[in-house]
Amino acid sequence: MGLNVYLAGEIHTDWRDQIIQGAQGLDVTFSGPVTDHAASDDCGVEILGAEDQKFWHDRKGALVNGIRTRKDLHDADVVVVRFGDKYKQWNAAFDAGQAAALGKSMIILQPEEHDHALKEVNAAADAVARTPEQVVQILRYVLTDKLPG
Amino acid sequence: MGLNVYLAGEIHTDWRDQIIQGAQGLDVTFSGPVTDHAASDDCGVEILGAEDQKFWHDRKGALVNGIRTRKDLHDADVVVVRFGDKYKQWNAAFDAGQAAALGKSMIILQPEEHDHALKEVNAAADAVARTPEQVVQILRYVLTDKLPG
Amino acid sequence: MGLNVYLAGEIHTDWRDQIIQGAQGLDVTFSGPVTDHAASDDCGVEILGAEDQKFWHDRKGALVNGIRTRKDLHDADVVVVRFGDKYKQWNAAFDAGQAAALGKSMIILQPEEHDHALKEVNAAADAVARTPEQVVQILRYVLTDKLPG
Amino acid sequence: MGLNVYLAGEIHTDWRDQIIQGAQGLDVTFSGPVTDHAASDDCGVEILGAEDQKFWHDRKGALVNGIRTRKDLHDADVVVVRFGDKYKQWNAAFDAGQAAALGKSMIILQPEEHDHALKEVNAAADAVARTPEQVVQILRYVLTDKLPG
Amino acid sequence: MGLNVYLAGEIHTDWRDQIIQGAQGLDVTFSGPVTDHAASDDCGVEILGAEDQKFWHDRKGALVNGIRTRKDLHDADVVVVRFGDKYKQWNAAFDAGQAAALGKSMIILQPEEHDHALKEVNAAADAVARTPEQVVQILRYVLTDKLPG
Amino acid sequence: MGLNVYLAGEIHTDWRDQIIQGAQGLDVTFSGPVTDHAASDDCGVEILGAEDQKFWHDRKGALVNGIRTRKDLHDADVVVVRFGDKYKQWNAAFDAGQAAALGKSMIILQPEEHDHALKEVNAAADAVARTPEQVVQILRYVLTDKLPG
Amino acid sequence: MGLNVYLAGEIHTDWRDQIIQGAQGLDVTFSGPVTDHAASDDCGVEILGAEDQKFWHDRKGALVNGIRTRKDLHDADVVVVRFGDKYKQWNAAFDAGQAAALGKSMIILQPEEHDHALKEVNAAADAVARTPEQVVQILRYVLTDKLPG
Amino acid sequence: MGLNVYLAGEIHTDWRDQIIQGAQGLDVTFSGPVTDHAASDDCGVEILGAEDQKFWHDRKGALVNGIRTRKDLHDADVVVVRFGDKYKQWNAAFDAGQAAALGKSMIILQPEEHDHALKEVNAAADAVARTPEQVVQILRYVLTDKLPG
Repeated sequence: MGLNVYLAGEIHTDWRDQIIQGAQGLDVTFSGPVTDHAASDDCGVEILGAEDQKFWHDRKGALVNGIRTRKDLHDADVVVVRFGDKYKQWNAAFDAGQAAALGKSMIILQPEEHDHALKEVNAAADAVARTPEQVVQILRYVLTDKLPG
Repeated sequence: MGLNVYLAGEIHTDWRDQIIQGAQGLDVTFSGPVTDHAASDDCGVEILGAEDQKFWHDRKGALVNGIRTRKDLHDADVVVVRFGDKYKQWNAAFDAGQAAALGKSMIILQPEEHDHALKEVNAAADAVARTPEQVVQILRYVLTDKLPG
Repeated sequence: MGLNVYLAGEIHTDWRDQIIQGAQGLDVTFSGPVTDHAASDDCGVEILGAEDQKFWHDRKGALVNGIRTRKDLHDADVVVVRFGDKYKQWNAAFDAGQAAALGKSMIILQPEEHDHALKEVNAAADAVARTPEQVVQILRYVLTDKLPG
Repeated sequence: MGLNVYLAGEIHTDWRDQIIQGAQGLDVTFSGPVTDHAASDDCGVEILGAEDQKFWHDRKGALVNGIRTRKDLHDADVVVVRFGDKYKQWNAAFDAGQAAALGKSMIILQPEEHDHALKEVNAAADAVARTPEQVVQILRYVLTDKLPG
Repeated sequence: MGLNVYLAGEIHTDWRDQIIQGAQGLDVTFSGPVTDHAASDDCGVEILGAEDQKFWHDRKGALVNGIRTRKDLHDADVVVVRFGDKYKQWNAAFDAGQAAALGKSMIILQPEEHDHALKEVNAAADAVARTPEQVVQILRYVLTDKLPG
Repeated sequence: MGLNVYLAGEIHTDWRDQIIQGAQGLDVTFSGPVTDHAASDDCGVEILGAEDQKFWHDRKGALVNGIRTRKDLHDADVVVVRFGDKYKQWNAAFDAGQAAALGKSMIILQPEEHDHALKEVNAAADAVARTPEQVVQILRYVLTDKLPG
Repeated sequence: MGLNVYLAGEIHTDWRDQIIQGAQGLDVTFSGPVTDHAASDDCGVEILGAEDQKFWHDRKGALVNGIRTRKDLHDADVVVVRFGDKYKQWNAAFDAGQAAALGKSMIILQPEEHDHALKEVNAAADAVARTPEQVVQILRYVLTDKLPG
Repeated sequence: MGLNVYLAGEIHTDWRDQIIQGAQGLDVTFSGPVTDHAASDDCGVEILGAEDQKFWHDRKGALVNGIRTRKDLHDADVVVVRFGDKYKQWNAAFDAGQAAALGKSMIILQPEEHDHALKEVNAAADAVARTPEQVVQILRYVLTDKLPG
């Protein structure tokens, strides 16, 4: 058994790298959104032409990024959704909603302070982790039966 | 044709009432979450017994509320998701994600200031409205062919 | 047994009225798109605000009209798609494609001159009719076992 | 991540070759309909026997070609639908309808003059491109995070 | 609880009447194919125009009849498939295959002499009945808990 | 909103009556298996003929009872599964597994002593209740926003 | 593109070998039922123990064979169903019904004399072939664009 | 054809090893739950932090184990469910219910004494085996047409 794991959510810290690094040697294929913030925001207009209105500038970009998200979500066995401590992060919760409706296994990675605000999201998840290392430990256990320590 | 419309999201202002009032005479059946904030938070422990940990207090409540959300989302033809100007509102985005993955028609009701933060959610929607009246006008048009004015 | 029948396609002649008239007395519930051409084109901007670009003017309208189409297609037992002799009518073929993929029964109503251009659409249909009266005869036969004459 | 991309629609210009050429080095597997017009029209009768009626001649061919289209659509992550400036092209819109109903990512490739006639098709797509090069740029961005220029 | 029951298969004896008669008073809605053999064979050409080739004469009829079968199968909770002692009856086995793949409850009504030839069909069924009265008894038990005698 | 509630599991105590009694006045339609133990065991052979082997005697009955279970599970919004203190009750856990895979809301009704043995079943449920009254309170809250007390 | 092709139906002539032979060099993976008639009939009792009743002897075998058929049908892109000139062949029609309901491409291979009896099966198929060579020609055309001759 | 086989149920005897050993040389990929009882019980708290309440201790573990079960069930062609002679084994029946609802082929491996208690589970299965060797024989027959002896 190998696992496809989609790393959704926050793109401002190195949590993805920590998980990918920690999971070396495991049979996991990781995917994730474009993490270059500027590219992610501007991909639509850069490729398909400029827009006067920011609303449609954003729309074009969101739709192009959606091609990648759709593929990654569809292929994923496990979706990890990271909520950080800044910004609205509605996109993370939106991805979590899609993952839940598609019946994917889901791990939420978030600080304790968000517990109440994320209670519905957490309730749809298989685990609420506090650190990238815990996510790695779950993946290792699922794949190899090995617990940490 | 009649429509089942689920009114998801923000529970602190009277936007639901405005839509329901405005839609009088139309063949629409509205549903929505429990809007009594305290009841919504405490339903799990009130019915099933207290918890020492707030995390599990929240979990029990979220799961019980999920019975209603699942039914309403499943039955809905149109999901209206309202984002207000306070709180994290991840639950609203989570509902939007589920609605999108289930192939529901979706109308987002939000102030312009959230446009960028909601660009992925908006891109999955059939309309981005600014006022409850616009939501009513869409429902009236879809059901009766009549445009406002 | 009653049937939900969605009447898709051309909106410039009275073929829908002929079918609805002819089917009086049968247990059929008809639906169809908004046939007021101006309303259909402008619904998005009339309700949600004007756009400078015709492209986004069209987008807003198409998305709002899509709420109705999605509901009608989803509820339909039979989709009748009419191709007339003017305009591109890509929307009719697009509806036919959706109906086919959703596993709906489909009747194409078209003049013989379009036979070759519509061969893939016809091949996915249960009947290719030339007149509204033939569509009515099919509905009557399916519901009552009665053949014409 | 690799992508399966189905190139649907117009078969009279070399747009497919341009996309395939431009995408060299990307992890994309392309598919498309039979582009030999005569073979596509006659495959049914050539293999299964002649027909007196052009209607059934066409039917046999459309059904045989449908075996390939069904497979390609089913396997596709992204469906590109090209509308040219000649012919009815209802088959292209029919494929787009199927792709939309199957939840596939979709890119429409069309000249600006068709914008209004294709507004419903465009509204179901993730991008409306004007040139094959833009399609390649989208695929490259989705697969590698790289924007042009 | 009420049941929709589709009575598929043999159309030359009065087994449908026996079941419908026997089930009077139960909350069952019965459906079935057109049992007027001539109408069933000729509906396509009677409505849509004659064909020179018997093959296409048959095709047109089968497709029109398919509109009814698709609706009835889709709505059915239970599909009863009757195999008689004459004719090929491939249509009955074809309906049984569709019912099985759609996850419908299925009752096969057949004489013992067909047991071996129908072993795969029987294995996909919830009951193999020998008489219409047994079918009625099953429906009565499922709906009212009452066993015969 | 009304709810279809399937009451699965243990058939030796009056827990179903308690729930149905307690839920009077709520918009709930209850269903459940045949609770006449002898009829449930013997329905297959009583209707379709005796069997020498107990294995096939059981098989015939289980298949006939399955017609009812399939319908009830399919129609249910909420599945309540009761585990009592006697017998193997594998059928209850089997129903719970089906309900979970079908995406139904689920309430487990069980004494605390079974908590560990039922941990996987509980983890797939929206609530673990200890008394029929708690089940009623959940249904009342979901339907009317009212909490007990 | 490669194709998975399930060869269903008649097991008494060498039509499967003809197709497999003819398709050498094409990217096709063939599957099919167990064609050793005795093994197919007796597999259930040979492995799981003898039965007194032929009915249950058959049932055990049909269920075991169903494991293979389910896998093959599920994986198939194209299902070829062969009807010969002997026996009831209800199993072939049953497989065709399942293939149709699962949305598989389907080719019927049958002598002209069965045209009328198979009209509903044929109407659900993409091609009605008379010879194994025609089946091969279709597969070659679908995979390589090449027509015979 | 190769088969993915999920070995569910009892984890206290070596039945999995017997099957895996016996199936050597066959194109089968086996999967199964974590069989280290302590690890399986404690994985949740070991990775995600201790719980005061045994109920939530169990919940955390069950959810983490569910990630593996979901993946294995989803990928499986055949689910073998073993019922031993000790413990409640509700998890085994729960897995069987999920497998049945997902349309998987299913083999039940159980001693005769459980026949009556498992009659609904057995009725949803393709085979009821008494020994691991019989399971191997079924897999060999399905994959190679070879019967034992």
